[in-house]
Amino acid sequence: MIPFTSNRESSVQAQGELRLIAGIKRWLGSASPQSPFGIGDDCAVIPPTRHHQLVTTDPVIFGRHFDASVPPRAVGAKLLKRNLSDIAAMGGKPVAAVISLALAPDTSVVWLRGFYLGLARCALTYGVKIVGGDITEGPAGFAGAFLTLHGESTGARVVTRSGARRGDWIYVTGELGGSLLGHHFRFHPRLDEGAWLARQPTVCAMMDVSDGVAKDLDSLTPKGLIPALIPGAVPISRAARRAAAQSGRSPLAHALCDGEDYELLVIIRARTDRARFEHAWRKRFPLVKLSRLGHFVTGRRPPTGALPLADYHGYEHLR
Amino acid sequence: MIPFTSNRESSVQAQGELRLIAGIKRWLGSASPQSPFGIGDDCAVIPPTRHHQLVTTDPVIFGRHFDASVPPRAVGAKLLKRNLSDIAAMGGKPVAAVISLALAPDTSVVWLRGFYLGLARCALTYGVKIVGGDITEGPAGFAGAFLTLHGESTGARVVTRSGARRGDWIYVTGELGGSLLGHHFRFHPRLDEGAWLARQPTVCAMMDVSDGVAKDLDSLTPKGLIPALIPGAVPISRAARRAAAQSGRSPLAHALCDGEDYELLVIIRARTDRARFEHAWRKRFPLVKLSRLGHFVTGRRPPTGALPLADYHGYEHLR
Repeated sequence: MIPFTSNRESSVQAQGELRLIAGIKRWLGSASPQSPFGIGDDCAVIPPTRHHQLVTTDPVIFGRHFDASVPPRAVGAKLLKRNLSDIAAMGGKPVAAVISLALAPDTSVVWLRGFYLGLARCALTYGVKIVGGDITEGPAGFAGAFLTLHGESTGARVVTRSGARRGDWIYVTGELGGSLLGHHFRFHPRLDEGAWLARQPTVCAMMDVSDGVAKDLDSLTPKGLIPALIPGAVPISRAARRAAAQSGRSPLAHALCDGEDYELLVIIRARTDRARFEHAWRKRFPLVKLSRLGHFVTGRRPPTGALPLADYHGYEHLR
Repeated sequence: MIPFTSNRESSVQAQGELRLIAGIKRWLGSASPQSPFGIGDDCAVIPPTRHHQLVTTDPVIFGRHFDASVPPRAVGAKLLKRNLSDIAAMGGKPVAAVISLALAPDTSVVWLRGFYLGLARCALTYGVKIVGGDITEGPAGFAGAFLTLHGESTGARVVTRSGARRGDWIYVTGELGGSLLGHHFRFHPRLDEGAWLARQPTVCAMMDVSDGVAKDLDSLTPKGLIPALIPGAVPISRAARRAAAQSGRSPLAHALCDGEDYELLVIIRARTDRARFEHAWRKRFPLVKLSRLGHFVTGRRPPTGALPLADYHGYEHLR
């Protein structure tokens, strides 16, 4: 559904700010608590947290993250899930979100209602409160929603991207690639998996795969080291194989480069009892694949026989 | 300065995401702490707060909140100050911010550098850490920055909008109107004043004036009551008088309706010793005016002799 309407009566402009905000509160329902903990004051109020707070921000913009083929409910859910995946990647649990909207005057109220219903349902599923936001007029043709999500670490420890050392093992959850065929509107952020992994003392670094392993693995690789990936170890999704049949590129290229996988890249210590770690994972998450991709070695080029990762291009924004 | 460039070499598109983020870290300097407390991980990390957290979000968008006549440093500073004013309105102190940028591919790196330098300087002035963000490609002609600011209440109490009762007195800080002649890029958010007011037990409701008193006072007015404002009590700024000379409207209309004053509307209990309250204010803030505008009475229309506030229109977004 296109977010704009030619019928002035059903545009956000015709509603005006006060009626829109009343509508938003209604659409959010129990996903939005009462003021001062919710919408309606200068600031939202969040009770103090026990552990470290986690904050992340990601938008959805018409023409970039979604188009007219995507139902508005899926857009609202995806906005929240993109951010939930970042909380998962640090082993946290989500708490509350605020949304800043910039909408062309002719944005459709029907579209906006669908967007908020999808957002509210997703928020209830994952236990997130929508506590506030802002709505501003944007230029013609523009519809963007900018969400900031607050979470809390689930233990004393926050797992960051910078913890890997030489010899440490590289794992990834789930399967990779082909998300543009639909997965990126249907995925489940790995919150339970991330929280469990953050409790394992052997896990020393973690991130979510949003731009493709070929690019994102760089962020986990310490200076002077390089990942030595085992050919054949990359878990290629069925969607990646379908995308390859259409594009003429290899399924592996799709798995490494497509982006929007929202799986977790996990680094564990070199000396870990891997069999025990993998067994514990399978016991806790029997339905979610966990694949060992390789390990970090010294050098500037992958050793002979390792996957030539530099030949695959990850997705870089603004290029 | 216009945010876009026709010289491809100096556009954000030519830089790419990784170099841009390196530039942003450099421009922010000491306003951005080291990872994991700053830029560079899936989430920013904020230490737990003692008191309630306050969260607010407001954007600046090209063509709406600023234009080519505004220096980029002023745009960066205004983005933060808009949000600081919301923290002030609840008696809080600011802590940390994240920014989500949506920029056309031809956005100028020189403009963006100025924007971040202005933001960084303002962040250092007010003790705010810029802890993270996102940068996404926007459509041609679009430049928007969406900031979410986190603060903390300065005491056990958070002053909300909903605390007024019949007979309570209405005050406003500073002077009102004419902000479009330049004040809205130069104002100082009333953080010290807001924190002091929140510590006075007699203060029962508060908000910042962003859309004009004529509109904003509605949000402080309980059901069944109406503000009875004293004619002549509204503190009209010099800028409002200058704006009136240009527009042909009255200085009072400018003072009540212009918006972007970023002053505080303050409600105190009916039985307060007003002379003592006003004396304490003058002692603490000798350079900042505090004006008593009137009080709340029962009814649907202002009593005879009171200011007919409904005749003045506040600024409503998306109209």
